[in-house]
Amino acid sequence: MEVESKTSFGGMESKSKEVKVVTGGKLRPFDLVLRVVALALTLVAAVLLGVDKQTKVVSLQLLPTLPPMDVPVTAKWRYLSAFVYFVVSNAIACSYAALSLLLSVGNSKGNKGLGLAITVMDLVMVALLFSSNGAAGAIGLMGYEGNSRVRWGKVCNVFGKFCNQVAVALGLSFFGGLAFFLLVVMAAFALNKRH
Amino acid sequence: MEVESKTSFGGMESKSKEVKVVTGGKLRPFDLVLRVVALALTLVAAVLLGVDKQTKVVSLQLLPTLPPMDVPVTAKWRYLSAFVYFVVSNAIACSYAALSLLLSVGNSKGNKGLGLAITVMDLVMVALLFSSNGAAGAIGLMGYEGNSRVRWGKVCNVFGKFCNQVAVALGLSFFGGLAFFLLVVMAAFALNKRH
Repeated sequence: MEVESKTSFGGMESKSKEVKVVTGGKLRPFDLVLRVVALALTLVAAVLLGVDKQTKVVSLQLLPTLPPMDVPVTAKWRYLSAFVYFVVSNAIACSYAALSLLLSVGNSKGNKGLGLAITVMDLVMVALLFSSNGAAGAIGLMGYEGNSRVRWGKVCNVFGKFCNQVAVALGLSFFGGLAFFLLVVMAAFALNKRH
Repeated sequence: MEVESKTSFGGMESKSKEVKVVTGGKLRPFDLVLRVVALALTLVAAVLLGVDKQTKVVSLQLLPTLPPMDVPVTAKWRYLSAFVYFVVSNAIACSYAALSLLLSVGNSKGNKGLGLAITVMDLVMVALLFSSNGAAGAIGLMGYEGNSRVRWGKVCNVFGKFCNQVAVALGLSFFGGLAFFLLVVMAAFALNKRH
């Protein structure tokens, strides 16, 4: 900030003394902003699906000889393993975003190894979030559309509010994954530029 | 190869003349090997699910007044959108692996921009493969286990061979995604080392 505007690789500065005293650069504030954005998005996504719950009274025919009975049925994220994976992944990504934010701020001396470790962990978060978004997205889509071939019925015509909340959480988590994606791209650009 | 054993960032060498004539390095052959591995794994995964088909004669009760009828039922990847996404993603990743292999081999002069573009595209493949693996994995697991809460029945007790082939394709595609993951990590390490 004071001396030069050189960029950092995951919060890491080069070996030269002039750069070592630099506490900020052209890309550094954007790196921190992206981590805050990733933290917020994954936090809201995890909470949104974590508190998602809807109870409906459904008319079920338990026996062919009995008339249909009204039974209260509840939809919860815990009932579907893909949604559990989604909530856990977003919670991990959120915790890591907070940790990496602290490490990035604390790494003003530009430890190369730490900078590299942060970038590799950012990449792990990309893989984790995209895979859990894929899993929750596939199950969510099945809930919306159903599939007559495997005889899996629609669920979202009954649990519309639950499904909409899943959709919003999915969108937020996707952008959270995108934030980590951009952090890796930025690290590669920053290193490439100074290389 | 001849002069130094400096590593490359996605097949890119530094500006100095000594390094420019280097056509290989400590990490370069491994980079090419990983691309070939990624190509092979995603190709086999896409083909394995693409040709996956199983027909079984299932006893179905079409009307309560009629006796159960034996109906031939076929399982195909095209019937489930998550599997379509999986096959298309692996086909894209396979084609890109072939292209990036050619570009990396052709980029012996070490064009920095091209090297960076290859690393960013490797990262796109990580996101694409992990998300499609998540989607196909979630649907595959639902086929194996079913879910009584949403009343989606097991399918794999009937279409066992089909499901096993899906599981193998998923495993291969996971390692394909891991190959791209390692390519991005290697690029970051190579640049960081020389930085």
